[in-house]
Amino acid sequence: MTKIHPQLAQDCLLLGRFPLCHLLLNRDANYPWFILVPDRENIREIHELSEKDQQQLLSESVFFSRCLQQIYTPDKLNIAALGNVVPQLHVHHIARYRHDACWPAPVWGAVPATAYTDEQITHIKQRLENWFQHNTAQVFNGV
Amino acid sequence: MTKIHPQLAQDCLLLGRFPLCHLLLNRDANYPWFILVPDRENIREIHELSEKDQQQLLSESVFFSRCLQQIYTPDKLNIAALGNVVPQLHVHHIARYRHDACWPAPVWGAVPATAYTDEQITHIKQRLENWFQHNTAQVFNGV
Repeated sequence: MTKIHPQLAQDCLLLGRFPLCHLLLNRDANYPWFILVPDRENIREIHELSEKDQQQLLSESVFFSRCLQQIYTPDKLNIAALGNVVPQLHVHHIARYRHDACWPAPVWGAVPATAYTDEQITHIKQRLENWFQHNTAQVFNGV
Repeated sequence: MTKIHPQLAQDCLLLGRFPLCHLLLNRDANYPWFILVPDRENIREIHELSEKDQQQLLSESVFFSRCLQQIYTPDKLNIAALGNVVPQLHVHHIARYRHDACWPAPVWGAVPATAYTDEQITHIKQRLENWFQHNTAQVFNGV
């Protein structure tokens, strides 16, 4: 298994994985903010993945986007592969609302992170796992 | 042909199109900043596209990312579908450098746009078209 970059490991909670990607929850309760990290060594850009892995990343991203859309009913999803700070390829999936902490600005560096309670994290895991149990196009294995 | 959102049309120059997406140049000389806009009506999110269109968007995005990588040799690409301001689905493709105007911060709202000269725009078009002529996995038609 690819080692998750120390900065991601520190900022995020590992929730589990799809066939290609680890699924992380960013520890910032300002927004439902998740990150997909392909389990591949030394990849910084989407175009560096094999064509098969690119397709799988797309499939998992679309599957998880539908999950976020249905669970959170956001005003907009923000999907982004930036990586200026953490070079390991990772794709942000963020549910945004007109009333959130920095709308319409992008979330990166906008406002300080706020902590989740243990109860909130348990609730998020339950909602996701319930959705994954009823939507099986991509297999998810929680940790 | 889908109408390009007025805000995008104002901020960007239409360079041409791939089979699915219009290719726009953002009028901000701070960064090589391009935008792919799928030519589909009433689509806000990648997961709202048909599966075939999702695949084509991926193909065009990867093709254009390789183009940016080879032409600009950036330190990092930033690929993002945000859309908090302009709801029409559009995917940013930005070549970033450690020495650019706001590295490592994201570009949106970071520093005021600076104008391109006509000569700079002509030079960008020539470099892109030359690359597209030698890399034909996706057909590009300039305007």
